Amino acid sequence: MASSPRGAERALYPVPLTLEGSSVLHQMLRFRWSEWRKCAPAARREVLGQSAPVLQPLESAQTAAYSMLGHKAGDLMLIHFRDSFDALKQVELDLASTPLWDFVEPVRSYVSVVELGLYESSVKLFRSLQERGIDPNTPEWNKEVEATMERQREAMKGRLYPEIPKARYVSFYPMDRRRGEEKNWYTLPIEERQRQMDLHGMIGRRWAGKVRQIITGSIGFDDWEWGVDLFADDPLVFKRLIYEMRFDEVSAVYALFGSFVVGVRCPVSQLGELLEGKLPR
Amino acid sequence: MASSPRGAERALYPVPLTLEGSSVLHQMLRFRWSEWRKCAPAARREVLGQSAPVLQPLESAQTAAYSMLGHKAGDLMLIHFRDSFDALKQVELDLASTPLWDFVEPVRSYVSVVELGLYESSVKLFRSLQERGIDPNTPEWNKEVEATMERQREAMKGRLYPEIPKARYVSFYPMDRRRGEEKNWYTLPIEERQRQMDLHGMIGRRWAGKVRQIITGSIGFDDWEWGVDLFADDPLVFKRLIYEMRFDEVSAVYALFGSFVVGVRCPVSQLGELLEGKLPR
Amino acid sequence: MASSPRGAERALYPVPLTLEGSSVLHQMLRFRWSEWRKCAPAARREVLGQSAPVLQPLESAQTAAYSMLGHKAGDLMLIHFRDSFDALKQVELDLASTPLWDFVEPVRSYVSVVELGLYESSVKLFRSLQERGIDPNTPEWNKEVEATMERQREAMKGRLYPEIPKARYVSFYPMDRRRGEEKNWYTLPIEERQRQMDLHGMIGRRWAGKVRQIITGSIGFDDWEWGVDLFADDPLVFKRLIYEMRFDEVSAVYALFGSFVVGVRCPVSQLGELLEGKLPR
Amino acid sequence: MASSPRGAERALYPVPLTLEGSSVLHQMLRFRWSEWRKCAPAARREVLGQSAPVLQPLESAQTAAYSMLGHKAGDLMLIHFRDSFDALKQVELDLASTPLWDFVEPVRSYVSVVELGLYESSVKLFRSLQERGIDPNTPEWNKEVEATMERQREAMKGRLYPEIPKARYVSFYPMDRRRGEEKNWYTLPIEERQRQMDLHGMIGRRWAGKVRQIITGSIGFDDWEWGVDLFADDPLVFKRLIYEMRFDEVSAVYALFGSFVVGVRCPVSQLGELLEGKLPR
Amino acid sequence: MASSPRGAERALYPVPLTLEGSSVLHQMLRFRWSEWRKCAPAARREVLGQSAPVLQPLESAQTAAYSMLGHKAGDLMLIHFRDSFDALKQVELDLASTPLWDFVEPVRSYVSVVELGLYESSVKLFRSLQERGIDPNTPEWNKEVEATMERQREAMKGRLYPEIPKARYVSFYPMDRRRGEEKNWYTLPIEERQRQMDLHGMIGRRWAGKVRQIITGSIGFDDWEWGVDLFADDPLVFKRLIYEMRFDEVSAVYALFGSFVVGVRCPVSQLGELLEGKLPR
Repeated sequence: MASSPRGAERALYPVPLTLEGSSVLHQMLRFRWSEWRKCAPAARREVLGQSAPVLQPLESAQTAAYSMLGHKAGDLMLIHFRDSFDALKQVELDLASTPLWDFVEPVRSYVSVVELGLYESSVKLFRSLQERGIDPNTPEWNKEVEATMERQREAMKGRLYPEIPKARYVSFYPMDRRRGEEKNWYTLPIEERQRQMDLHGMIGRRWAGKVRQIITGSIGFDDWEWGVDLFADDPLVFKRLIYEMRFDEVSAVYALFGSFVVGVRCPVSQLGELLEGKLPR
Repeated sequence: MASSPRGAERALYPVPLTLEGSSVLHQMLRFRWSEWRKCAPAARREVLGQSAPVLQPLESAQTAAYSMLGHKAGDLMLIHFRDSFDALKQVELDLASTPLWDFVEPVRSYVSVVELGLYESSVKLFRSLQERGIDPNTPEWNKEVEATMERQREAMKGRLYPEIPKARYVSFYPMDRRRGEEKNWYTLPIEERQRQMDLHGMIGRRWAGKVRQIITGSIGFDDWEWGVDLFADDPLVFKRLIYEMRFDEVSAVYALFGSFVVGVRCPVSQLGELLEGKLPR
Repeated sequence: MASSPRGAERALYPVPLTLEGSSVLHQMLRFRWSEWRKCAPAARREVLGQSAPVLQPLESAQTAAYSMLGHKAGDLMLIHFRDSFDALKQVELDLASTPLWDFVEPVRSYVSVVELGLYESSVKLFRSLQERGIDPNTPEWNKEVEATMERQREAMKGRLYPEIPKARYVSFYPMDRRRGEEKNWYTLPIEERQRQMDLHGMIGRRWAGKVRQIITGSIGFDDWEWGVDLFADDPLVFKRLIYEMRFDEVSAVYALFGSFVVGVRCPVSQLGELLEGKLPR
Repeated sequence: MASSPRGAERALYPVPLTLEGSSVLHQMLRFRWSEWRKCAPAARREVLGQSAPVLQPLESAQTAAYSMLGHKAGDLMLIHFRDSFDALKQVELDLASTPLWDFVEPVRSYVSVVELGLYESSVKLFRSLQERGIDPNTPEWNKEVEATMERQREAMKGRLYPEIPKARYVSFYPMDRRRGEEKNWYTLPIEERQRQMDLHGMIGRRWAGKVRQIITGSIGFDDWEWGVDLFADDPLVFKRLIYEMRFDEVSAVYALFGSFVVGVRCPVSQLGELLEGKLPR
Repeated sequence: MASSPRGAERALYPVPLTLEGSSVLHQMLRFRWSEWRKCAPAARREVLGQSAPVLQPLESAQTAAYSMLGHKAGDLMLIHFRDSFDALKQVELDLASTPLWDFVEPVRSYVSVVELGLYESSVKLFRSLQERGIDPNTPEWNKEVEATMERQREAMKGRLYPEIPKARYVSFYPMDRRRGEEKNWYTLPIEERQRQMDLHGMIGRRWAGKVRQIITGSIGFDDWEWGVDLFADDPLVFKRLIYEMRFDEVSAVYALFGSFVVGVRCPVSQLGELLEGKLPR
């Protein structure tokens, strides 16, 4: 096992330090076009007007709406970033109480929290603690760990509680790290995982400026271990970046992917326009 | 095979002693918000009033209600702890007869019983019986086993028939032990399983106070071997605990997980409030 | 291959003798409680009254009804044992023609026939035929095989055409024998399979009196190779028996399981009571 | 790779000659019994009468109807053998235009063409061409291949464009050849595949007279590589034949099976009777 | 790892140059025949007439309609080739706003872009850059790569933005390259992948004239890595080509296939005819 001594040398503690930020909900919704078509213009205006008190404040509260391609994610995806699960649940309840929701049915969803895995700091800290003879999960260990976490939490505030990027396109997918009978991410030593994540991060950095990536963790909350949102003004960037990463060891060997969905940003203020069949530009 | 002699040494009996307690049903339910919105306030009150005789006694009979995040577990999860499968079935029938159930449809469910696996006692007892030359499943073996079980059943009464923890958040997931072509939990010697479970338990103990875990067994009753409920006042604890455990040998190599769902406790007395769109605080 | 000579010694014929008995259909049905609640007591009585000519004779014709826990098997499971597939299909048609079936929708089903695998007799017979120099599938072989089958068919009539046990609880699940890339039941020599099945049977025999097991074969008829019904007056027996068997080589390595469902017997004469929300005692 | 030279000896061309015949569509349909029950006898007669011009010619145009056991294949399966995909599509459109189709909804389907794999002729021909120094896919190779195909096509006309057997029972299932990481049918040399198929065929021949088998190929058309229809007057024959074959190397190691469904033949002329709840004898 | 030095020799950069062209949407739609049958001829004409302004321009804007066999892809598949995801989304919205869409429900869909993988040019270029001592992802590397891409983009314009072939039949399927624990496409050196793709392409070229193939990439957009459309005037060509390719190393070992669907071209101008039940010839 990764956490037990091997020969003379002891393995480092296997669990990387991990920071959490905003609570995130992806709602993928089918729109009942048939029912909507049956409504006269005045009735549509009434539905939208009565729903406005819930809809209008959404965007400034960090909700983004996307018009989705294909049918797998329904017609509309809402991404909500909030400060807590309670706030996420409340926005679900608020939306469910609007008359617009008579025209909406849930197709998929994803519950997660913004996550930063501190592989580099972890290896550095664990090595130093080991050299100082401090054992994992002792009070001294915990104190040092908490201090590092606190420092990083402060330094990375902006990335832990990000604004949703304004980019026109979004690609979302969930993923796991493989736990196969032969190839198992969770039994690799932390230094090896750190090495692979580092190489992986280098690819990401080359794409900075063209695409924003927000990783959210969903262990304990949803079907996969992580959710990934990519935001870009050119949707081909999603394909190129992910394809390039697929040849990277950590993805080639240890990544398992769920469904990918792609959509076009629709400012909430233009939802009415979208529901008249016009894709906002 | 694990149960046949190897060289001079005989393997211990492979099946751990296991205690069962409360019968448990998880009901995950979609709420028909559209239909509910069509009801005038008076009609809603009538529905709730006519359903009250079934709903009100639920909580004291060990039923907890949760407002679920995302759509996978529907809108509402009820966890029922009862003394028997008959009592579980009766509560299902009682709920199905309320007018509120016109607004409810089943999405998922899980049937199980509270379970305590006595790996440590098992290995100790089986070793001692083996040393005394007592063979498995002989009358003398059975007598000793039954005596140990009885003692433990008495000592662990509180954990076998627990009250549902009052914590604000719940995370539920089903799991299996892997029976792969190479890595197979069920062919490991019991001492090796005991060793791994023991390390696993040590992680759990470090989290005591922050999270309550109730393991239920579902072999013979539902699609997975076990169901796990975690209860905590901070939902991030679910993610941190499960992530840490994932690096532990028994989880890293031998655990297969189903869907994870997460929800916010809603006292049954405040269900009406929830159905008005207000998340109880 | 298992059936070709290895060195000087020839392998035994790999296919075990197998007897078939009753044709069996499991119907798992969701009950439309909402629609039922809309019916006045008189209307319900009429529905039940008009359905009675089909329902009443069911039990004596070897149909058992169960009120199912959770939602996976719907609300109701009917197990029909009949003499032929035609008789099974006719009971399906008869039920579909009752007014009660307006309140019922199919959720799952399983088609199979009672099966007894004669591993012990097979090995004994095949060995003796081999010693006498009789080759598989020659007329002489076929004659001897048919004679053994006939004898066993007569001796096991009661088990081939059983009455449905009166026990209060049922657990049903389908299963396959593994055909993995490494571990493949169907390429094991018949003597090895017989050895494993024999050990497996010994566990079953220790549970006799507490649980009745009926194995049905579904190769060619349904999605899995076998269906297993367990009948007991204490549902915990299902869990304990199956858990114990899971450590047995033939299950640990070679068994793949489908969904498990569990229910409470409801005499057909008390179906009306059940539909009023009272679980028959 | 199977198609590249190994040492001094060159491998035979790996793709077996394959003949195609009738285009085949399996339609599995749920019947809306509730809606049907609401129709008065006169209305039912009208529905059937108006649908008769489409239904009556079906059987002589090589369509067979089956009343299916269990719910997985719905209530009714239609197997259509036609001369082309256009003719199959036209029969779908014709049926969809009948008033009877208001009571029918699609559950499953399968699109394929009758196929005969000429493993024996292929190996013989490829070996002879190799000995004559003729390379695969050269004009001379193609000429010889086409000549063999043409001869076989003529000789096997009856099997390529068969009438649907009159047997009372049908069993249908789709299947693939395994392409596992270790065991991969498509990387075996053609001689080895031919050897296994030959042994497989010998089992089939022993069952001739008791069961008719029609293999259809669906690569490029549907989810699996092949569909298999078995026709017999005793449904137990399906189980016995498939079980016996499962011990045969090509099935034990290289076959992956989809869902099996089983049904009882219902002459189209007796559909009305079936819809009155009487299984035709 | 494929991208790190091995002994004295350095591996080539693993990611092949890849060009993208048209944005593509496959919409698979069930037609509500029952609802349609309820419409009088005049009402049908009105529905079609009011939908005509959206439907009529479709074909010249590179949309093709197909009447699908079986039920898996619904009744109708529309393939849209457009210049951007925005244009694809707009056509979805336009169609959803027609009265004809009251009779249509989405069954499946696929989002992708036309893709050409330049394995040969990549290996040639990367080798030459390596010999000149130019490292991957340096400005000089990027300049050379961009120059090659630009040249190829120009040369292959016709294949990147193709017209939809006029052929009568289409076969569509999604696929992945295997990332198994043993066999993993993404860890093969690029020269080995190029070698296999080259052999694969040779099969394709032998079928030129009989079938047109359009490969679209969907990494980041949909559930599989690629979508493949085959167009031919004889549907058996699909089966023969794909079957032959299945014995080719790159498919035999490294291809994972999703569902295959097959359909018959229906010019948009003849949709009305199709909806009257006549398959256009």
